[in-house]
Amino acid sequence: MAKVRIGLFGFGKTGKMIASEFLNDNQFSLAWVVRNSREDRGKYASRLLGYEFDEGKIFSTDEINDSFFNEYPVEALVDFSDAKGVYLYGRAAQQGIRVISAISKYEQAELDLLKSYAKYTSVLYSPNITLGINVLMVAAQILQKIIPHADIEIVEEHYKGKAEVSGTAQKIANALGLDVEEHLNSVRVGGIVGHHEIIFGLPNQIIRLSHESISRAAFGQGAIFAVNHLLGQPPGMYTMETIITEMFRKNIPVY
Amino acid sequence: MAKVRIGLFGFGKTGKMIASEFLNDNQFSLAWVVRNSREDRGKYASRLLGYEFDEGKIFSTDEINDSFFNEYPVEALVDFSDAKGVYLYGRAAQQGIRVISAISKYEQAELDLLKSYAKYTSVLYSPNITLGINVLMVAAQILQKIIPHADIEIVEEHYKGKAEVSGTAQKIANALGLDVEEHLNSVRVGGIVGHHEIIFGLPNQIIRLSHESISRAAFGQGAIFAVNHLLGQPPGMYTMETIITEMFRKNIPVY
Amino acid sequence: MAKVRIGLFGFGKTGKMIASEFLNDNQFSLAWVVRNSREDRGKYASRLLGYEFDEGKIFSTDEINDSFFNEYPVEALVDFSDAKGVYLYGRAAQQGIRVISAISKYEQAELDLLKSYAKYTSVLYSPNITLGINVLMVAAQILQKIIPHADIEIVEEHYKGKAEVSGTAQKIANALGLDVEEHLNSVRVGGIVGHHEIIFGLPNQIIRLSHESISRAAFGQGAIFAVNHLLGQPPGMYTMETIITEMFRKNIPVY
Amino acid sequence: MAKVRIGLFGFGKTGKMIASEFLNDNQFSLAWVVRNSREDRGKYASRLLGYEFDEGKIFSTDEINDSFFNEYPVEALVDFSDAKGVYLYGRAAQQGIRVISAISKYEQAELDLLKSYAKYTSVLYSPNITLGINVLMVAAQILQKIIPHADIEIVEEHYKGKAEVSGTAQKIANALGLDVEEHLNSVRVGGIVGHHEIIFGLPNQIIRLSHESISRAAFGQGAIFAVNHLLGQPPGMYTMETIITEMFRKNIPVY
Repeated sequence: MAKVRIGLFGFGKTGKMIASEFLNDNQFSLAWVVRNSREDRGKYASRLLGYEFDEGKIFSTDEINDSFFNEYPVEALVDFSDAKGVYLYGRAAQQGIRVISAISKYEQAELDLLKSYAKYTSVLYSPNITLGINVLMVAAQILQKIIPHADIEIVEEHYKGKAEVSGTAQKIANALGLDVEEHLNSVRVGGIVGHHEIIFGLPNQIIRLSHESISRAAFGQGAIFAVNHLLGQPPGMYTMETIITEMFRKNIPVY
Repeated sequence: MAKVRIGLFGFGKTGKMIASEFLNDNQFSLAWVVRNSREDRGKYASRLLGYEFDEGKIFSTDEINDSFFNEYPVEALVDFSDAKGVYLYGRAAQQGIRVISAISKYEQAELDLLKSYAKYTSVLYSPNITLGINVLMVAAQILQKIIPHADIEIVEEHYKGKAEVSGTAQKIANALGLDVEEHLNSVRVGGIVGHHEIIFGLPNQIIRLSHESISRAAFGQGAIFAVNHLLGQPPGMYTMETIITEMFRKNIPVY
Repeated sequence: MAKVRIGLFGFGKTGKMIASEFLNDNQFSLAWVVRNSREDRGKYASRLLGYEFDEGKIFSTDEINDSFFNEYPVEALVDFSDAKGVYLYGRAAQQGIRVISAISKYEQAELDLLKSYAKYTSVLYSPNITLGINVLMVAAQILQKIIPHADIEIVEEHYKGKAEVSGTAQKIANALGLDVEEHLNSVRVGGIVGHHEIIFGLPNQIIRLSHESISRAAFGQGAIFAVNHLLGQPPGMYTMETIITEMFRKNIPVY
Repeated sequence: MAKVRIGLFGFGKTGKMIASEFLNDNQFSLAWVVRNSREDRGKYASRLLGYEFDEGKIFSTDEINDSFFNEYPVEALVDFSDAKGVYLYGRAAQQGIRVISAISKYEQAELDLLKSYAKYTSVLYSPNITLGINVLMVAAQILQKIIPHADIEIVEEHYKGKAEVSGTAQKIANALGLDVEEHLNSVRVGGIVGHHEIIFGLPNQIIRLSHESISRAAFGQGAIFAVNHLLGQPPGMYTMETIITEMFRKNIPVY
C-alpha cells in the first residue's frame, strides 16, 4: 500500500517530535518540512533526527510558492509552526490537501482564513491535539450533565517555568462553564510535562478524570490520528473535540 | 406535594446509613424498616438514629405477611438486607411497588425471582448502587472503544480487613474484558473506605478515571437517585449501569 | 493496671469523636466531659454516643470551680472546646494534671496563660493533633534542606463549604518559608474530609508527601498519642511537632 | 576554577542521558566515554548528542589498558555500563580516581571486587542513584518506626514492557521488612517512566510518599550529586542511601 505523504510546517522542539512520530510510522512518509529560518535548508529532517535514511527535506518559508505543492505533492499537511503559517498553504488547500493545524492561538483573521480552506478540503484545528485531553474534555462535559449537583474543580500541574495558565485547562473550564479565577488551580513545580485533573465532588464521593503527558510525542500521535481520520472525510471544518464526541456517540455501550 | 413513601429492608451498618439519607431528604418519608432480628421491634428508626420525630417503624421479617403492604403502603421499597430478602416482597411487586435491590450477590434462583417481579413493576438491581462507580464503569467502556490501543489496568484500594477482591472492581474488569488475575490490583491498607482507579496507558500519555468513597452514605444517595428514576418508568428490569448509559447517550455534547 | 482517667473539654462534633476514641480504648476511662451549654448536664457522654455503660458524666462550664478537679480527679485533660477553655483549668494544671490542647487559634493572652501552666505540669498544644500531619510537616522540613534546589508547592483539598485556607497548610507553608499567596493551592470540592499534599519538584523527578484524613477520629487518636507521651514527661511545653521531630532523630536508620 | 573531569563507562540509552547531564553542567568536563562496541570509536559523545563542541572522546573497552588512566586523567569515573565494567577500572581506583557505579545487579565476585577498590579511593554504589528514590527510602524507614501500627503497601507503576518487578521497589520492601509477594503491587501500563508509592495506612488517615520519574536524566543528576559528594570524602564504600541518611540526621529541625 502506498504510504500517505505528509508535509510538516514547523521544526522547533515540538515540530521535531512530530517529525519523529511520522518518521517512525510505516504508514507515512514525511515528504518535506518547512521552517521559518533558512537553517539546515536542503538537509533531511530524518538525518538531523538521527535516522539513517532521507525523508523530510527541509525548506524555508520563503521557498513556498504557488508551484511548491505541485512539485512536492502530499496528502496532508500538518502545521505546528505559528499563527502566520496559515498564510502559506491556501493553494495547498485548494488542491484538496488536508490541513491539520495545532497552532496554540490565532488572531480572528487567521482563524477565518483557516476556516475558509474548509470549502475545498477537510481542515482540522485543535490547539491541543492529543487524544487523551480531548477524551477528558468530552467525558467531563457529559459527567457534568449527568451529575449536575456535583461541584467541579480543575487542577493543572506544569513545569516551573510555565508562566501562563494552561490553555487546555482554560478550554476545559469554558466548556464546563466554570469561572477560571475561581475553579481553575494552577500548580507550577519541577519538570512536570503536563497534568490535568477534573474533580467532580459530591458529599460522599469524588470522581477524578486525569490526564498525564509523558512526552510531547503525544502531539505527534494526535496528528497521526487526525490525518487518518481526515483521509476518509469530505471537505469541512473539524476539531479533535467534535471527532471524539462523535466517537463517544458511536460507542455508547449496548446491553 | 405528597412525600414519596419508602420501605427499607435491612438495618445493619449500611442499612442505617440508607435510612438516614432518606430521613434527611424532605422529598421522602421513611414508612417502615424491616430487619431480620426482633431487636428494637416497634421502635422508630428515626429515634434510634438520633432524630426527634417518628419515622421508619421497625418490623421483623416474621411480621411480613400478605396484608403488610396494604396496611403500610409505600411507593418504593429499597433492599439492603441480604439475598433472602427477595422472598419477602413478591406481593409488594404485584401491587406495583417499585423495587430497588442493592444486594451484593444472589444465587441464580433468587435473581430469577427478582427478575420475575419486573413483569408487574419497575425493578432496579445494582450491587454497587453509587452514582459515581456506575459513571466510571460506563465511561471506561466508551474509552476502551475510542482508544483500543491503550492498555488498561485497574487498581482498587480498600481498608486492611477487606479479605476478598472488590466486587465492583471485578465487575469493571469483566465489562472491559480484562483478566482479573492479571489486570486487577488490590491494595489493602489502613481505613480506606473505597477507591477504584481505571488507568488507560498510551506510550506518551496516561488517562485515569478514579472514584473515591468518602462515606457509605453514597449508597443512600444512589438509592434516592434510583427511586426518583423508577418513579417515572414503566415495569421492567433496570440497573444503575443501564440508566447511566442512557444518560450518557442523552448528554453527548452538541456543537 | 489502673486505667488512665481523662477529662474532656468540648462536646461538639469533633469533641464527640474524641470522646468515642477514649471510650473505645481500654487503656483509658473517660471521667467527665465539660461543655459550654447546660444541655444534657448530668447525663453520660457514653450513653449519648450509644454505649451501654456509664462514662463521661457531663458538666457545664459554670459547674467548674476550685474543688472540681479534687472531686473528679483525672491524670490528663484534653481540650477540644474553644479558646476560652484555657481559663477553666489553671487549678488543674497546678495540681499536676497534664493538659492537651487542640484549640485551632488562641489570642496571645490565652496562649500565654496556657504556657504558664507548663511550670506545673506537662502541657501539649497542637492545633492539628493528628500524627500524620505532624509526620508530614517534619519530613517536609528535612526534605527541603536535603534538596534545596527543589521548588515546593502545597495543595490542600477540603469539603466545599470550608471558607478559609487550611490552617494546617498555612502552618506547613510557614515552616517551609513559602509565601502562602503564591505556593499554597486550595481546592474546595464535594465532601473531602481533608487532604494535604506537599510537592517537591526537580527537573526530572517529583516527590510528593501526602496526608488524607478519613475521619475526624484521627484527632482522637492524636490525643491518645499525646496523653501517652506526656505521662512519662516532666513539666514543660510540648507540641506534636517537637515530639515527632524527636522521634525522627531517634529513628534515623543505622547501617 | 578547574572543571572536574569525568570518565563514563556505558553509552546505551541511559548512558547517553548521563553524558548529556555532565555535558550540560559547567562544573564538569566529560573527558571520555568507554563503550563495549567499537562503534563510533574516536568520535566525540558531545557531537553524537548534538553539541557543537568536542567532549567525551569515545573508546571501546578493548582500548582500556594500564596506561589509559594516566593518559586520560579524570577525577571520577561513572559506570552505567554493565556488571563486567568493574573489571576495567581497578588501576584507576588504585590511582585514587573516585568510582560511582549505578549497575543494576552484580554477581558476588564483582561486588567484592568493587568493594576492594574502597581501600584506595571513595567508591559509591547505588543501583538506583536518583536523589528522590533514596530520600523516599530513608523517609519510609523512619516513618515505619514512628508509626509502627501503620500497615504499609508499596505500589510501583512502570511502562507496559517492563517484565520484572521494580528492583527499587523490592529494595524498599526489604528495607521495610515487607513480604514482596504480599505487599508490593506492580502496575504495568502505557509509557510510565517510573512511579513508586509507599502507603502508610492508619484507621483514620493515610500517608503517601511518592516518587515520579519524569526522565532518565534524573540518573545523571544523581551521578552529579554523587561525584560532588565523593570529592570531599576519604576512601571508603558509600551508597546514596547512607549519604541521604546522614543528610537526614544533620537536617532534623531545631526549635
